[in-house]
Formats: sequence, C-alpha cells, structure tokens
Amino acid sequence: MDEKIKPQTLRGFQDLLPADMIARSAAVETIRRTYERYGFLPVDTPALERMDILTGTAGGDTNKQIFELATPEGEAAALRFDLTVPFARLISQYRDEMKLPFRRYHLGPVFRADKPGPGRFRQFTQFDIDIAGANTLAADAEVIAVLCDAFRALGLGAAGGAPALFQVRISNRRLVDALLEGNGITNLETIKHVLRVMDKLQKIGPEKMREELGPGRVDESGDPIPGVGLEPSLIGKISDFVAVAAPTRAGLLEALADHLPATEQSAQALDEMTELAEYLEALGVGEDEAAYDPSLTRGLDYYTGPVFEIILPGAPEFGSVGGGGRYDELCSRFIEEKVPATGASIGVDRLLAALTHLGVAHRAKSIAQVCVATVGRVPRKEVFKLARELRDAGLNTVTYLGNKKNMGAQLSDADRYEIPVAVILGEDELANGLVAVKDLIAGKAVRENIATREEYRQAGRETQTTVPRAEMVAVIRRILEQG
Amino acid sequence: MDEKIKPQTLRGFQDLLPADMIARSAAVETIRRTYERYGFLPVDTPALERMDILTGTAGGDTNKQIFELATPEGEAAALRFDLTVPFARLISQYRDEMKLPFRRYHLGPVFRADKPGPGRFRQFTQFDIDIAGANTLAADAEVIAVLCDAFRALGLGAAGGAPALFQVRISNRRLVDALLEGNGITNLETIKHVLRVMDKLQKIGPEKMREELGPGRVDESGDPIPGVGLEPSLIGKISDFVAVAAPTRAGLLEALADHLPATEQSAQALDEMTELAEYLEALGVGEDEAAYDPSLTRGLDYYTGPVFEIILPGAPEFGSVGGGGRYDELCSRFIEEKVPATGASIGVDRLLAALTHLGVAHRAKSIAQVCVATVGRVPRKEVFKLARELRDAGLNTVTYLGNKKNMGAQLSDADRYEIPVAVILGEDELANGLVAVKDLIAGKAVRENIATREEYRQAGRETQTTVPRAEMVAVIRRILEQG
Repeated sequence: MDEKIKPQTLRGFQDLLPADMIARSAAVETIRRTYERYGFLPVDTPALERMDILTGTAGGDTNKQIFELATPEGEAAALRFDLTVPFARLISQYRDEMKLPFRRYHLGPVFRADKPGPGRFRQFTQFDIDIAGANTLAADAEVIAVLCDAFRALGLGAAGGAPALFQVRISNRRLVDALLEGNGITNLETIKHVLRVMDKLQKIGPEKMREELGPGRVDESGDPIPGVGLEPSLIGKISDFVAVAAPTRAGLLEALADHLPATEQSAQALDEMTELAEYLEALGVGEDEAAYDPSLTRGLDYYTGPVFEIILPGAPEFGSVGGGGRYDELCSRFIEEKVPATGASIGVDRLLAALTHLGVAHRAKSIAQVCVATVGRVPRKEVFKLARELRDAGLNTVTYLGNKKNMGAQLSDADRYEIPVAVILGEDELANGLVAVKDLIAGKAVRENIATREEYRQAGRETQTTVPRAEMVAVIRRILEQG
Repeated sequence: MDEKIKPQTLRGFQDLLPADMIARSAAVETIRRTYERYGFLPVDTPALERMDILTGTAGGDTNKQIFELATPEGEAAALRFDLTVPFARLISQYRDEMKLPFRRYHLGPVFRADKPGPGRFRQFTQFDIDIAGANTLAADAEVIAVLCDAFRALGLGAAGGAPALFQVRISNRRLVDALLEGNGITNLETIKHVLRVMDKLQKIGPEKMREELGPGRVDESGDPIPGVGLEPSLIGKISDFVAVAAPTRAGLLEALADHLPATEQSAQALDEMTELAEYLEALGVGEDEAAYDPSLTRGLDYYTGPVFEIILPGAPEFGSVGGGGRYDELCSRFIEEKVPATGASIGVDRLLAALTHLGVAHRAKSIAQVCVATVGRVPRKEVFKLARELRDAGLNTVTYLGNKKNMGAQLSDADRYEIPVAVILGEDELANGLVAVKDLIAGKAVRENIATREEYRQAGRETQTTVPRAEMVAVIRRILEQG
C-alpha cells in the first residue's frame, strides 16, 4: 500500500460540518435580510490583495500578522486581514462610477497569522456594513439601528418584560479628544498614546491604566512599560470620565457634561451625541439595546467619531461579537478626496458560538423534510418517481442510497438527520396507488414512552397512515405543520 | 501630501459590484434551494490547506498552479485549487462520526495561479455537490437530476415547445475501457495516454487526435508530440466510437453497442448506462436536457465511471459551466477504506457570465423597494420614524443621507438604483398625518413619453398620490405588485 497522508487542517483553521453550517447559514440569512431592509448592497472582493494595498507605503499594518505569498509574476500579495481595507480600495478604485453616499454589505473570510486559541481562528468570517460618503450622524445611527434590528431578528430582542439579550455600547472619540485637549493635551502622538492606554482598561483594570497614564509600570515579567507622563489631576479626570454611567443615553450625557472641560469642543461633542441619541430613538433603538458608555475605549485611536461594540451579556466569555464606528480617513491611503465613512463588522464565528451557547442558534441536523423507504421488491426507479413528486411539491426529500433492505437501516438516515416524515412504498401500495406516511417525530415520542399510541390517536395524530398517493403531500404538510 | 497607493486588484482577480453580486446571489440561492431539495447538506472548509493534503506524497498535483505560502510555524500551506480534495480530507478526517452515504454541498472560492485571461480568473467560485459512500448508479443519476433541476430553476428549462437552454452531455469511462481492453489494450499507462489524447478531441479535432493515437505529430512550433502508437484499425474504432450520435439515450446505447467489442465488459458498461438512463427518466430528466455523448472525453482519465459536463448551447463561448462524474478513489490519498463517490461542480463565475449573456440573469441595481425624500423643513428624525414604519412592514427602505434639499438630488439614488417607490414627506403632510407616495416606474414612463399621464390614470395607476399614513404600506404594495 502507498503511504497515507494524515487528513488534518492547518493549525488554527476550522471545518464546518452540516449542523454548524445550517446554524450559520440561518443566522447569515437573517442578518443579510436586515442589511437589505436598510438598502445596503452586496459587494465581493478577492481574498488576496496586493501587499501595498493592505500595508500602505510605510507597511504600517504589518502588525496585523499577514499571510504573505507571491504571484507567478512575483508581485507581493497577501490574504486580507479585514474587509475594511478592501472596501476603501473598492471605493477609491471605482470612485468615478460610484455615487456617494454608498451603503454596502460584505460577507467573507479574513485571515490573520496570529496565535490561534480556543474560538480564535486564523481564518474567520466577517459580515460588514459601511456607509461611505455620509458625514452626518444619521449614518452612524443607521449603522447602529440596523445592527440592533439584526440582533433582534436573531432572537435576541427584549421579550416578556426581560431586556434585550444583546447590548451595543457606544462612545465617541470626540468626547475623549475634548477631555484631553481641554486639559492642554494637544500633541496628536500623546493623545494616541493616551487612547492606547485607555484601550487596555478592560484588560489591565483602572489601577494599572492610571499607572500607565502616569509614570509607567513594570509588568509581571519585570519589563518596564513606559507611561504617558500625565499629571495626577488629569489622570484622575480620565479615570472619572470612563467611570461615568447612567441608565439612559440622555442621562449619561448630562452626567458626562460635568466631567468635561467647559470648552466649545466639549459642547460640540455632547451636541453630536445628543443628535445621535435623537436618531437612535427615532429608529426604534431601545435604551436597553444601545447604551452610551465612556468605559468603551476599544478602537478609539483608530476611529474618528462615534465608536461602538456589541456584547451578549449572557455570554460574556465570547467577548464582543461585533463593533464599529466612524472612520473619516477611509480612502486617504489611495486618493486625495476625503471620504467620510461609518460602519460595523459582525464576527460571524464568535456570534455563532455565542448563539449556540445561549441556545438561540438555529441548530438542525438536516434540511430534509421527507425520506423515502421501501418494503419488498420495489424498483429504485419507483422510489425516484415518488421522490420527484414530493420535490415538485416543494418538499425537501432524500432517498436511501445504501444497500440494506430492512426498514431500520433505510430509516437510520431519517433518525440521524432528524427528518420528520417518512414515505414508505411497498409492492402492494405501489400496485394500488397508495403510500404509507409515517410521522417520525410522533413515532419517536411513542417509542420513548413520552406518550402512548392511544394518546397520539386521540390527539388526531397517527404515527403511520396509508393514503392515496394524490393525498400524500397534503398529509405530509399537516404533519410538518404540527411540528 | 503623502504618496498615494494606486487602488487596484492583483492581476487575474476580480471585484463584484452590487449589480453583479445581486445577480450572483439570486442564482446561488436558486441552486442552493435545489441542492437542499435533494437533501444535500452544507459544509465549509478553510481556503488554506496543508500542502501535503493538496499535492499528495508525490506532489502529483503541482501542475494545478498552486498559490503557496507558509504558516508562522513554517508549515507548507497553499490555497485550495478545488473543493473536491478538501471534501476527501473532510470525509477521511471525520470518518468515524460521518455516516455514509453522505451528501454535501459546498460553495466557496478556489485559487489557481495559472495564466489569467478574459473570463478566466485566479480566484473563482465553485458550487459543488458530492455523494460519498454510494456505489449505485442511482447516486450518479441523482447528481445529474439535481443539476437539471437547478438549471431549470435558473430559467433555462424547456418552454413553449423550445428545448431546454442547457444540456448535460454524459459519457462513461467504463465504455472506453471496454473498447480499449476488448481490443487488447490492457496496460493502464497506455489506456491513460489514450484517454488524455481523446481529451484533446475538442481542441485539436479528429485528424490530429488520430495522429496522436498513432505515430504522433509535430505541432505548430515544430515540436514533436509523441504518439500512443496504436494500430490504424483501432484508431479507426476509436474515431468511430466518439462519432456515434443518436437523439435519445436508449438509441445512443443501441448504436454504440455495434462499436464495442463483444465482451462481458462491454455488456456490463452498456447495462450500467441503461440503468442510469432508467433512473434519469424516473427523475424527470428530459432527453433534451441530458444526452449520452461519447464525444465527451473530458476528465475520462480522472473519473472512474459516468462523467458529464453541462453546456449552454446558446452561449458556447463560455464553455462548460459545470461538470462532474464518479470518482471511486476519492479518499485513497488519506485512508485505506475505499469510499466510492460521485459529484459535480458548477463554475459560478462562468455560469453568471453566460446567464447574463443569455439575458436570464437576475440583474437588479438595488434590493431597495422604497426611498424616503422630504420637502421643506422636515427633521431627519421624522424621516427615520417613517423609514422604520416601512421597514417594520417588511419593505426594504433607504433614506437620503446627502446634504442637498431639492427633490431631484434626493431621488437621484432612486433613479440610479431603480428603486420603484418614493415616499415623500412634507411639512404639511407631517402635520396632517399624510404622505405622498410616488410610483417611480410609472413616473419614469410618463417622463419618457412611453405613456401619457392620462393613460396611466385610466389604467388606475397614479404616478403620485397623497394618502393617510396608515394606508401608505397598502398603497406601496399595490404599486410593487403592478411591477
């Protein structure tokens, strides 16, 4: 025998078997329908891009752990690490034919060559929306509203008096800029350093954040982490700022006003957030669904306006399942024209893991509704004719392709894939234009003594019934409706 | 200003803008629904695989022009060049939990680093089905039938007395084996050489094929092409074999019998094809949809049984838009167990190009149904409330995010994206609970003098009408239904 190769994926890559894919497709379809409800249009771009597109002239994004490769012509290429850079390229490349504002959605895999871990893959799927060319906060509000609509459609909305199972946390780069600049910090590098330190708040906690905003600290391994060198009074203001909380968006803004310097810049930033709040309310975004939260600092050094992330409070271990914000430098790598943009990205893999954990993923073992089995000497072509009738009636139908003749073997697929109905064709039935229709869900319940056959009969539900072939489809539909 | 990077794709890669993506998504959904109607289940695998998975121990498939790369750990990896090898890996890797027969579908990008050309990309999308673990011809018939169903659902079925716009051409490796072996050619290498030469029939024509089956020939550049060295009489038999034609599958088999040696092997191969024909008929596959055709020789050296390809006779320049066959060596690279398999692959990019050429692609500029515009001083939040009502009613609705106030600018999006309805909100309407609903399709027709306003009115169709807000959705639905 020749040597066999061990069947395995690369480290950090995953396969999706049918149960995973069915749940994922259902969620993706729900999100897609919601995106389309707001007029977002689909685009697609290649998984591979030119290296300069991804990293810029300075190669600034190489910390993104890019999978590099070369084309046959020796061009430097790489697998994209997000869908935002390709969108910026797209807008810039087709600028003449593309009318702004432009809303697009994009579903696709992205690749990062970083350290894999549980639930952390080197290829993962993002489902992005962006609005390019709109500098109004109405666009930011729309992005947040469409996400809330999508998460509601996924079954995570408020129900029976309980609040929504998702929460959007919203902050704004301009609020932090107002805080810092109003306190005399005007150097962009210093501001970005502060933002990067604030970004570590969730990870290192407020005490270490304060140390890093000040003189710096020594980490666990003994390495020194240089600090920003801010005055203790400003560090206190930043600490207080990120700790402000309130049950409503308007309330938060009111409380926050006391923590901002009395400058024109602060007033403008607060006005922006007030305007955004107005739009969110008009778009039906509940206070339990989207909260203003200055402790959200993630990505503030990247975004230029509102920034947000989505968490599922019932599944905190999965972290944020999406996020986004305003990024008005979208196309600056490629063209002179300033194209303001705002958008969001849903992490599909994490979302599905979290939905599964919460028990709201659409998990099904099969999409089939009917399986066909035979008793006695029934030619396969008769099975195929029957299956065709069922499929023509719109019923997802599988036939048995194995070699065994006994009913158990023929229906083992039905059991394995949780197919709800079997149609059984015997020689006599075939000769007389009849078929037996078997309710496999009810049948299973009877076998497991959940109910007696008598109880099922009284409920008007037979586990098996022989009917004229012309009535077959109607009988099956009734069983499927009973669920 | 810093230096700008030219926005461009890599050579041989394509972007899909909304009009392309809408047509593609519609076709993919149609195909997916049909695959599911037969019980095929979705899977997904990574775009990257270990190099040994793709090339085998001998690196035998390196002629596939693989995009290679290395992982951070230095593992040799590559982008997959088809979805069949990943499927073989999947079946082999999850063999213990996977019950056979197993039907799966898989939609995804594949990558080939070969020479790009018009309509020939280095990344393209395949939509595959395979049945693993079924050695019955019933499985082959099912694969062909589901493809025919899918192409009918795409709008390519027979209509109004005209034959189908697609054609499946079917041959069988076993027929050629019977022809060759019955004529004394039993060496597998020689048989494979003959099959490779026959494979060139479409490209080089029958005369050059005969030369290559015999002594060989000299190509245009003067290079010698070594021949198989067959006897002239056998070359004649092969030529005659591939030229056999008949209007029905049964008729073809009858005619073909005269061209095969009178061996047990020939009888078995013909019986197989008879059995397949019976199944195809039972599954409703028309003679105009799927024909037996010995001149189909493509892939015969790879496949081990029935082989087929799908062409659109009205768009021959796009070549085959799909194909497949039986390949019983599916998992032999990975495991000892023999897993018989049969399947097919649709080339989604080529298919969409051909559908567009034939005018049956679902081309739409937008998925939006309604756009909202304003007259006078209407606050944006009122637009958002109105849009929310429309979306809650299930209508895909866009709002205008630009800065212009005039109606033309606000409706230019509608025009550009062919959005059929506008809802216009003015100050007075807002105060009185009214909205104006504008039929943009009818309006455009009036503007273009296709019909007079009077004619539209007589047809019960107003281009614009002011209605109470509670009736807005019903009025819009009527317009959408009139299409």
